[in-house]
Amino acid sequence: MLKTEINELLTQTGPGTPMGELFRQYWIPALLAEELPANDCPQVRVKLLSERMIAFRDSEGRYGLIDEFCAHRGASLWFGRNEEGGLRCAYHGWKFDVTGQALEVPSEPDNSNFCAHVKLRSYPLVRIGDVLWTHMGDPATRPPLPEFEFTQVAPEQNYTSKRWQECNWLQAFEGGIDSSHVSWLHSGGLKNDPLFKGAKGNEYNMNDLRPFFEVADAEGGLFVGARRNAEADSYYWRITPWVMPSFTLVPPRGDHPVHGHWWVPIDDHNCWAYSFDYHPTRPLTGDELSAMRAGHGVHSENIPGTYRPVANRDNDYLMDRDAQRRGEYFSGIKGIAIQDSSLQESMGPIVDRSKERLVSADAGIIKARQKLRRAAVALRDQGAVPPGVDPAHHHVRSAAVVLPRDSAFIDSSRDALTAEPGKPHASV
Amino acid sequence: MLKTEINELLTQTGPGTPMGELFRQYWIPALLAEELPANDCPQVRVKLLSERMIAFRDSEGRYGLIDEFCAHRGASLWFGRNEEGGLRCAYHGWKFDVTGQALEVPSEPDNSNFCAHVKLRSYPLVRIGDVLWTHMGDPATRPPLPEFEFTQVAPEQNYTSKRWQECNWLQAFEGGIDSSHVSWLHSGGLKNDPLFKGAKGNEYNMNDLRPFFEVADAEGGLFVGARRNAEADSYYWRITPWVMPSFTLVPPRGDHPVHGHWWVPIDDHNCWAYSFDYHPTRPLTGDELSAMRAGHGVHSENIPGTYRPVANRDNDYLMDRDAQRRGEYFSGIKGIAIQDSSLQESMGPIVDRSKERLVSADAGIIKARQKLRRAAVALRDQGAVPPGVDPAHHHVRSAAVVLPRDSAFIDSSRDALTAEPGKPHASV
Amino acid sequence: MLKTEINELLTQTGPGTPMGELFRQYWIPALLAEELPANDCPQVRVKLLSERMIAFRDSEGRYGLIDEFCAHRGASLWFGRNEEGGLRCAYHGWKFDVTGQALEVPSEPDNSNFCAHVKLRSYPLVRIGDVLWTHMGDPATRPPLPEFEFTQVAPEQNYTSKRWQECNWLQAFEGGIDSSHVSWLHSGGLKNDPLFKGAKGNEYNMNDLRPFFEVADAEGGLFVGARRNAEADSYYWRITPWVMPSFTLVPPRGDHPVHGHWWVPIDDHNCWAYSFDYHPTRPLTGDELSAMRAGHGVHSENIPGTYRPVANRDNDYLMDRDAQRRGEYFSGIKGIAIQDSSLQESMGPIVDRSKERLVSADAGIIKARQKLRRAAVALRDQGAVPPGVDPAHHHVRSAAVVLPRDSAFIDSSRDALTAEPGKPHASV
Repeated sequence: MLKTEINELLTQTGPGTPMGELFRQYWIPALLAEELPANDCPQVRVKLLSERMIAFRDSEGRYGLIDEFCAHRGASLWFGRNEEGGLRCAYHGWKFDVTGQALEVPSEPDNSNFCAHVKLRSYPLVRIGDVLWTHMGDPATRPPLPEFEFTQVAPEQNYTSKRWQECNWLQAFEGGIDSSHVSWLHSGGLKNDPLFKGAKGNEYNMNDLRPFFEVADAEGGLFVGARRNAEADSYYWRITPWVMPSFTLVPPRGDHPVHGHWWVPIDDHNCWAYSFDYHPTRPLTGDELSAMRAGHGVHSENIPGTYRPVANRDNDYLMDRDAQRRGEYFSGIKGIAIQDSSLQESMGPIVDRSKERLVSADAGIIKARQKLRRAAVALRDQGAVPPGVDPAHHHVRSAAVVLPRDSAFIDSSRDALTAEPGKPHASV
Repeated sequence: MLKTEINELLTQTGPGTPMGELFRQYWIPALLAEELPANDCPQVRVKLLSERMIAFRDSEGRYGLIDEFCAHRGASLWFGRNEEGGLRCAYHGWKFDVTGQALEVPSEPDNSNFCAHVKLRSYPLVRIGDVLWTHMGDPATRPPLPEFEFTQVAPEQNYTSKRWQECNWLQAFEGGIDSSHVSWLHSGGLKNDPLFKGAKGNEYNMNDLRPFFEVADAEGGLFVGARRNAEADSYYWRITPWVMPSFTLVPPRGDHPVHGHWWVPIDDHNCWAYSFDYHPTRPLTGDELSAMRAGHGVHSENIPGTYRPVANRDNDYLMDRDAQRRGEYFSGIKGIAIQDSSLQESMGPIVDRSKERLVSADAGIIKARQKLRRAAVALRDQGAVPPGVDPAHHHVRSAAVVLPRDSAFIDSSRDALTAEPGKPHASV
Repeated sequence: MLKTEINELLTQTGPGTPMGELFRQYWIPALLAEELPANDCPQVRVKLLSERMIAFRDSEGRYGLIDEFCAHRGASLWFGRNEEGGLRCAYHGWKFDVTGQALEVPSEPDNSNFCAHVKLRSYPLVRIGDVLWTHMGDPATRPPLPEFEFTQVAPEQNYTSKRWQECNWLQAFEGGIDSSHVSWLHSGGLKNDPLFKGAKGNEYNMNDLRPFFEVADAEGGLFVGARRNAEADSYYWRITPWVMPSFTLVPPRGDHPVHGHWWVPIDDHNCWAYSFDYHPTRPLTGDELSAMRAGHGVHSENIPGTYRPVANRDNDYLMDRDAQRRGEYFSGIKGIAIQDSSLQESMGPIVDRSKERLVSADAGIIKARQKLRRAAVALRDQGAVPPGVDPAHHHVRSAAVVLPRDSAFIDSSRDALTAEPGKPHASV
């Protein structure tokens, strides 16, 4: 249960809000690289942390993320022309570069002097891996670029997608550190999904519906451990790292790739789920890539030309009561990603956490909220740099391990939980 | 004309409002029985009096009406599994019975002790006739079950449908006790509708467009009498009973079945119109049932799989100006039910009654509002049980009778206005 | 840049607002005459200045514009019957004439005496040219009828259309006195549009992208002059008249007809753009009329049966990035009217003018806002009759002229800027 004012603090991320300021300390995903595939390609409308912007890639390949609206009279630059080193507004021909700097105001007699004083709000946009990242905070405190392992492996070892989720970022993120729902909501996927099925760990997962949770603090966030019975003398531990503010990794299964998510607020009622699959030691196979593109695993089948899932709230996520009855999909909804978004969106745009009833299996969620709240308040009151800003905090991995019953999970898994180039992942 | 604050009092029915509390004194229709056709069938989302709920029928045939959202983290139970004696949330497997009592919280070590303290808000759900009824008030003051005649006759003597109406319950209900609009809005129906046409009374109805209204108090509500000229020495009386809060009966025509409505608030901008046709002394014929299923009489043709009429505000109710010009339908809208909902919805979600101009033909509406207001205030201030709660008040009938000009309608019609098994209805 | 309170003053036109009162001093376009094509034809819903009304044409050809909602209980008269000298409500048969006066209240015993006291709010509706005009202010200060030249020429010399624009009237109107965007946004149209192309002036227009603006006061509004280089010793002047509150004329091109606009607020987030083309000295040709009907020039292709453009915000105005890249349409949007509405609507329903950055080319916009504000305040505080009310102020023309470099545009163009029957327009 959360007091209403704390729920508001954690869920509101617009300009000037404490949690909004916290998000503005980090590099966050702004687009997929595929959205700006070539120099001078069409610009893209982007909304992040309740700010409306235009992303574009200029004639020399520079990326820019600038205010959507022209400095002159407020027309959307989405209608503008991206050409010859800048974006030109279609209304009166004002032209801006990737930093938002005005290059031309054609009607002005003293063009260059006038331009010098016209600059749109802008943020850096940098490609790392399959993602274009931005930092929407004070340039003076801009941290080094992110180093999450999925962005560091060779391109053929990683696949990233994204989907629009119609709820607040926090309830989407909370699903990501909530290992206990897998045995229920995703039980069909453990049996059928080509990117999940076939691992020994799935049997442990399905046989013990009462996991015990232990949460360990990490420099950049948390490690959430879910312990299930394995053999008579051992436990099966699934360990989910969280790096602040909203990066999580799902514990792996057998030789399947590792997957995870980055949740990014669009506004307070919508967020992006960036979902990726990477294998630390080998390229993804053709079959794996086909499955990912088809929306299996953590990915979704989206409406062509958009990042909205085909199965969405307008069509009740294509609920199939027969498939539910047959036990094919526990909730009647097909696909792990849509199973998550359907339930999370069903809570409403921002769930009223004053009515919830948390249990011991929610230990990760409880700790994460506390850590977020403390960081937002410390930033607001003392200007403290929050955990997860330092790229050294990004070098984490999820792990699924079988440990003797008397082992402390965090001590026994230090190495497994640390990302290192070429090191196999710890996966059962 | 109604002061704005009285309009608000009468139209707002959410939790804690005076009129909402009044509605919570009664058994009200919650669903059609056909919506839960079998044990363990799919659950249904229900919104009543601004509360969102799930209705389901468990493995043993028990009906339940419980909070839509899981007690744990607020996911909608619409995605859950209805099986083995309860409804299981699809997110983490929490399971609830028809009373909202938690049966299982799988992740909790001490499951049964924990469950004992988890209970969702719930209301009884009872089948009487074709309708599932609920009582959303204090169980301590729960009255005996409803005894309206349409629920008491043999199944083959009754047919019930429902349709979604996109306006406040009060303006829908007011149409139900407003006998004076029939000669205008429904004039086409008196000539053409298979469930209306052919009665002697229709001629009286069409020949006298200036009915005189007399309203008599009843234990459970009112009797609204509309007097038109019949023969030289007689009057044609159409008498509409209202039982509080929102049950009405249309006066019958010839040997046609009796029909009526129950209006139930969904929220302050939407309501359900439950519409029924029953014959007190014989089964409905195949032709009658076909006509009802096709949307004739007080019924509507709905979009398959929903209870929204095919003709609705999004398509201007399929307005047909040619049919209007030919005089086929007075307003250009086909079907008595849709003629009503189109006009009532055209007033806006909640009509501004401070701008209306009532006339003598609105005597029933005026008296009904006074009675509703007095009952809501007496309940709020003195806890007084309102009229219509006692099932004895439900034993009413509508009547269409020809009386000598010097008869008082209420004295001459006592017997005709009282429901009694097997007694023919008084109908001209 | 405009202070927020001044932006609100200029953009809000509902009853009781200063700008709403200003609009209510004028005859303004309410419908196209084609919307009420015959006596007793179907009535039409009209919303103007945030008031909802019904327009109809009675059995004798009289036009009426009355409150949309019946005086009785508020049902929409759109469902009523237009017949036998009035509009009869479909609910209870109340009947009103074109002045809103009740003619019949059938249920009332003393019908005619009762009717005398029932009158709906109503406004005059008068056909002049292709347009039905209304005056929504105090009848005591009702001015003579409008005399804009497009309403005075022979019917075969004029064509008028309208389209729904989904933004505040002010940002639509501002586009109409903003000559500097033509060389950019409409550059494709200058080359391709059958109603624009082929004039000598277009070359001047395209060759000088830095027009100099000079604004001259007029009795009814302003003349906005845009000066571009013509030959070595001459300037090309395009002169746009504005008559208050929102009538503008586009400067002509060669022998093409003159076109212009009347912007009328629907509510604060929507407006009508009435667009016309007339030739002062000859009938429009068949080719010209075909082009206008097809949505060329200032006209639009609308969804059949409506005045909403086919290309609208729901479909991103059918953006064609390939056509944009090829240079066919500068913004990728086809059609001059839709190029305007797309950009203007992209600013949001009411653009935040506290963030704009006006330049010298916006001199007309700046002066027009000042004049509007002064007139609204003078009306509110002193009851002053605003400019443009007097029909003598309507006798203006746009002009496109080449003048010696040392001429003052306003002195040299007095005659060209004055409408006079049969006088050729000044056009290059």
